[in-house]
Amino acid sequence: MAKRKENLTSEIGWSTPDEINVRGLDLPSEILGEMNLGDLAFLLLKHRKPSPEESRVFNAIVVTLVEHGLTPSALVARMTYLGAPEALQAAVAAGLSGLGTVFVGSMEGAAKMLSEALDGVTDPDLDAIADRLVADFAERRQIIPGLGHPVHKPVDPRTPRLFEIAAENGLSGDYIALIQKVQERAEAARGKSLPINATGAIGAISSELGLPWHIVRGLGVMGRSIGLVGHVLEERENPISAEIWLRAEEEILKNNGPDATGKGD
Amino acid sequence: MAKRKENLTSEIGWSTPDEINVRGLDLPSEILGEMNLGDLAFLLLKHRKPSPEESRVFNAIVVTLVEHGLTPSALVARMTYLGAPEALQAAVAAGLSGLGTVFVGSMEGAAKMLSEALDGVTDPDLDAIADRLVADFAERRQIIPGLGHPVHKPVDPRTPRLFEIAAENGLSGDYIALIQKVQERAEAARGKSLPINATGAIGAISSELGLPWHIVRGLGVMGRSIGLVGHVLEERENPISAEIWLRAEEEILKNNGPDATGKGD
Amino acid sequence: MAKRKENLTSEIGWSTPDEINVRGLDLPSEILGEMNLGDLAFLLLKHRKPSPEESRVFNAIVVTLVEHGLTPSALVARMTYLGAPEALQAAVAAGLSGLGTVFVGSMEGAAKMLSEALDGVTDPDLDAIADRLVADFAERRQIIPGLGHPVHKPVDPRTPRLFEIAAENGLSGDYIALIQKVQERAEAARGKSLPINATGAIGAISSELGLPWHIVRGLGVMGRSIGLVGHVLEERENPISAEIWLRAEEEILKNNGPDATGKGD
Amino acid sequence: MAKRKENLTSEIGWSTPDEINVRGLDLPSEILGEMNLGDLAFLLLKHRKPSPEESRVFNAIVVTLVEHGLTPSALVARMTYLGAPEALQAAVAAGLSGLGTVFVGSMEGAAKMLSEALDGVTDPDLDAIADRLVADFAERRQIIPGLGHPVHKPVDPRTPRLFEIAAENGLSGDYIALIQKVQERAEAARGKSLPINATGAIGAISSELGLPWHIVRGLGVMGRSIGLVGHVLEERENPISAEIWLRAEEEILKNNGPDATGKGD
Repeated sequence: MAKRKENLTSEIGWSTPDEINVRGLDLPSEILGEMNLGDLAFLLLKHRKPSPEESRVFNAIVVTLVEHGLTPSALVARMTYLGAPEALQAAVAAGLSGLGTVFVGSMEGAAKMLSEALDGVTDPDLDAIADRLVADFAERRQIIPGLGHPVHKPVDPRTPRLFEIAAENGLSGDYIALIQKVQERAEAARGKSLPINATGAIGAISSELGLPWHIVRGLGVMGRSIGLVGHVLEERENPISAEIWLRAEEEILKNNGPDATGKGD
Repeated sequence: MAKRKENLTSEIGWSTPDEINVRGLDLPSEILGEMNLGDLAFLLLKHRKPSPEESRVFNAIVVTLVEHGLTPSALVARMTYLGAPEALQAAVAAGLSGLGTVFVGSMEGAAKMLSEALDGVTDPDLDAIADRLVADFAERRQIIPGLGHPVHKPVDPRTPRLFEIAAENGLSGDYIALIQKVQERAEAARGKSLPINATGAIGAISSELGLPWHIVRGLGVMGRSIGLVGHVLEERENPISAEIWLRAEEEILKNNGPDATGKGD
Repeated sequence: MAKRKENLTSEIGWSTPDEINVRGLDLPSEILGEMNLGDLAFLLLKHRKPSPEESRVFNAIVVTLVEHGLTPSALVARMTYLGAPEALQAAVAAGLSGLGTVFVGSMEGAAKMLSEALDGVTDPDLDAIADRLVADFAERRQIIPGLGHPVHKPVDPRTPRLFEIAAENGLSGDYIALIQKVQERAEAARGKSLPINATGAIGAISSELGLPWHIVRGLGVMGRSIGLVGHVLEERENPISAEIWLRAEEEILKNNGPDATGKGD
Repeated sequence: MAKRKENLTSEIGWSTPDEINVRGLDLPSEILGEMNLGDLAFLLLKHRKPSPEESRVFNAIVVTLVEHGLTPSALVARMTYLGAPEALQAAVAAGLSGLGTVFVGSMEGAAKMLSEALDGVTDPDLDAIADRLVADFAERRQIIPGLGHPVHKPVDPRTPRLFEIAAENGLSGDYIALIQKVQERAEAARGKSLPINATGAIGAISSELGLPWHIVRGLGVMGRSIGLVGHVLEERENPISAEIWLRAEEEILKNNGPDATGKGD
């Protein structure tokens, strides 16, 4: 049962007739024109402005999450818009609803694996930790989150670039080193290519930025909502979802309708 | 009925085993580390990179839309998280669902009013257009979108700053001039303070950026999804939605329960 | 701006340690085992139990709205489940999001047209009203809501059965008579088959039941949520949404990918 | 990665110009006027019509799930409607989004516990199984799903009535007997009142009806969507969500605003 509270509090922000404050900063004078959209997201997650280096790295990882072509969530947003063109927000909301365990789970899982292995550990033995992690996942017969990709083989082209950006900005530390060691051992153990995919890279870099693992799904939600607006606007100009629907409906009718089943006679 | 299409097409992007392309740009080499989150949103809406000036102005207007304190949509996201803490994306989706005519309508309305008045008009007579608009809305007994604010009086502190950023970056033109003239005439006609609110400023600046008015609701959705992630994460650390719910439920029980109605005897 | 309230009230229901009350009825003793699901929906909309005749008619119209095959909203629910199989509720929520102006609008529109024409009118001249309605819609170049169907021609097979059920239960009055007269005149004026479709029949019968027109969209939401649960459960056993997605994605890659555009070279 | 399919199939239904078929039944002649809303839900879940006894029992359990007063999901629907009154479907969708592990989890958990203990077991020793279940949950320090209630003590008034309806209709078997034995042992072991709550009763009765445990969350979704339509319609007539929001916002401003923090000086 929920615990009762005497006072409702929130540190996110407040406004009065002549002031608007977000996380302790005056919106008009300290945020507008000073911070880009990614920086404001960082402020909301970390409760402070990013350094210029953090800004570049954080923007890069969220930017990576915006657009992945005609994904199921893009199709969901487009098909929702088909029925409710007056409610763009509902189309985006519907598209976000499917960002669950299957599509954002591995990013969350990678961040969790790395932060549970390293947070609070001084002078960690990365080789030993990597050995243990690979063995643990093998024993549990689980996929190691953040490794492998159905399309991008042998290398996910986003990963080396993201790691490069992190290194250029002084944010390549033990978390990135650990996932690279995990990858080497996993490839050796399984005898196949297991590239660190973008979700693995983002999980590691999030940890380098000090973001708790449970926040990482939120990065996907932030990024994808922007991408979904893009899909809805293209659907408006170049509608394709009705055609996708009608083809599927016709195929079902052919395969299961009265002519197929004899029930219609 | 939906028209049929022979071919499904989408210009947003594609990926192959070693390439990922978004709106004609190579994601790893031309986007990551080069564009911030607001710039990528601009790319998806305008199909080209922003200039540095456009980047500053566009980021400023979307940043304005991220966070407005404990709004109904923030409460919706927090209360959804209360029941489904495993599904942060569903909480944000629920929060976005209420960004309809009441809360984002005036921004869309302001952009529509300005662009319908000025798009394709060469050498417009702004004074005459402003007179006509104020008269038209008065005749239809409608509120002029983008003017007036229940809290921020006599000035919405975001508006002068947004207009300043637009001017500093060479993006203050007829749309901004027109809404300012509309405001002057509306205040004179109605005899009361009618500040250009943030939605009016954003509607005007969107038009200066060449964004079609029907896109403007999408800016609100992009910005607010980031703000809602912030609310869900604070709810996780400092839960308040259960208390808000329980207080309301208890008050209903007191006002309408068996002791109030005698039905429980 | 929202008006303030001193007291929060709700007449829907309340519970105490040993009682649960819904709209004035004791849930365990007066509802459970006594009312079916449609009857409880009626109770929530009309604030009283249906008569046996009302129960049959109301259940029939909501039942009509449950299942329409592989609609866009069914595809949306299935594709959302693909990404978040742990959250069946999110899949149904996503599917409901698209029940907007395009797919439920005509039902709402038919109920509105009929109730605005007849509510509060004693001894209405149905022929004259039908003439006027057909002329008004023609003048505004609008489709008459509730008439015409892309597939079910010349007769929507649900309509005569719904009208028969209404008549058998003493609920066929002026609203049904009016939409039939509107249909006759519209067919004569336009010279083509314009069957009263199921949404027109439901709009008329809702009005016979005394349901306000703005409630009618809610009937669609109630019914469809049940149908969407059915689709998600079939998707679990016989997944088809991934195939629909992958076919579309591959076609886009072929039509817009590097080989098509030369950008990948 | 998703497996490919050569053919898309669906057994739910199909339509041709003059026929509409749902799960093998002709909608106009075999469903409309013949089956109530709960019966159609049963058809979609079980792929056959219910017997009269099954109809009474199934309707009773779904009816139980419709309305629980001013829950968080009801507040979510009402607050979404506040911002988007043009989109009732979005309000219901938002309200459903929170039916996750916290509020429907125990129903799913009870059904899972009982079906995993009994499905496929001939001649089960219910006493031994109950002992084992109580010991297992105690060892894992987990709450037994379906037992205990924060308000309804010592008895949840829905439970005896639901069990009575099941018994009257010949559907009280081993699943109900087992949860009753689990309750007795759990109360003895923990030395406190642990009533079988409505979710426990519904979990058990669902199993008696042969519904797989993973379907049980869908029953909650079906029922609640009907209840949420009721809340949105009451909010339309008697709006309370704005007041709840404004009270919370004012309290935050008092506790965290400029006067509290000194940041506004």
